[in-house]
Amino acid sequence: MALKLYGTAMSTCTSRVLTCFHEKSVDFELVPVDLFAGEHKQPPFLVKNPFGQIPALEDGDLTLFESRAITSYVAEKFKGTGYDLIRHENLNEAALVKVWMEVESHQYNPAIAPIVYQSLVAPLQGKSPDQSIIDASVEKLGKVLDVYEARLTGTRYLAGDFYSLADLHHLPYTYYLMKTPAASVVHERPHVKAWWEDISSRPAFKKVAEGMKFGGK
Amino acid sequence: MALKLYGTAMSTCTSRVLTCFHEKSVDFELVPVDLFAGEHKQPPFLVKNPFGQIPALEDGDLTLFESRAITSYVAEKFKGTGYDLIRHENLNEAALVKVWMEVESHQYNPAIAPIVYQSLVAPLQGKSPDQSIIDASVEKLGKVLDVYEARLTGTRYLAGDFYSLADLHHLPYTYYLMKTPAASVVHERPHVKAWWEDISSRPAFKKVAEGMKFGGK
Repeated sequence: MALKLYGTAMSTCTSRVLTCFHEKSVDFELVPVDLFAGEHKQPPFLVKNPFGQIPALEDGDLTLFESRAITSYVAEKFKGTGYDLIRHENLNEAALVKVWMEVESHQYNPAIAPIVYQSLVAPLQGKSPDQSIIDASVEKLGKVLDVYEARLTGTRYLAGDFYSLADLHHLPYTYYLMKTPAASVVHERPHVKAWWEDISSRPAFKKVAEGMKFGGK
Repeated sequence: MALKLYGTAMSTCTSRVLTCFHEKSVDFELVPVDLFAGEHKQPPFLVKNPFGQIPALEDGDLTLFESRAITSYVAEKFKGTGYDLIRHENLNEAALVKVWMEVESHQYNPAIAPIVYQSLVAPLQGKSPDQSIIDASVEKLGKVLDVYEARLTGTRYLAGDFYSLADLHHLPYTYYLMKTPAASVVHERPHVKAWWEDISSRPAFKKVAEGMKFGGK
């Protein structure tokens, strides 16, 4: 039975999971959730995720939410299929994947999310972007990327010389960032830029990016 | 060789890892990092964690940072020792542990951290707590705990009827929260209150809490 993902391809968190599905070559069905109609805040969806956020996954009787928990589950369940995203045969490498997944969650995401929100989402909602929030977040993101630049001088990917969930989790937000003037934080750092060009050109993500039409950009 | 943790017991993130060590009954050495002297921002520590945050773990040649990555590593490496924190023999239960670990990271932590910072850390730094930040965060935390209250009506712990890393990760911040007037968000929700009393009375955490002397409170 195919995995059933409730979400929408334009959402960063849904795209994170879709990219994982393609890397693992697993069968799935994307069940659209209409955010504009507030479907994610209605009881049928709240049963799947009580926080009312997409995506949610159904795998038989099991229902999961939180995109990074879903990717970790899929990478573990299908560890023998497709690309190994969690280095399941090497405890030390797997630990470094976890470290850089946490860095994405606690350092990168809080800095990049407000930039994408203000630049691309707020205008869709008829609001003007708040430039002071963008500026502060770009400065914060720059400091995070200074650490990435140093790291990527020594290893090709974040957790080591292997692509992993740690890199994959960065894809959707960075894809949108690159459509804003703040893309300069990536362009200014040669190793970060090379890493971005590498990970965003993987066939799995290119398939997903085709569906990431945010505000028609 | 014992695990070597660089940090300080009063830090929430260090305490998160220490609690995991005690649950797993593993040998460790806590190497103090003097935050007041800015030791975590100096080169010898930045080699261990380039983001300059405690804690960092050394296990032989392996160096890890980000507290939740460290606990996951320890729980996996020592899965045969002490209490099983990750349900490693049941893929579905393990997935639910991951879901609620992510909930702590992305829903709970962003709401509770500003309350603890404003109430307990700011005064230590000679600043007045910003009540508007506290109020907004208490409201946000209340909404998160409404979901927890409903969840804990059906299961004893967050991921199911078993204690796991998902619960453990909540301990240090909630311990400090309970020393502030905002503790009411827990007291007002009977299942959340019972869950808190249960998890905070585990011997592993009680040992750690003895060292959590924040501002002498």
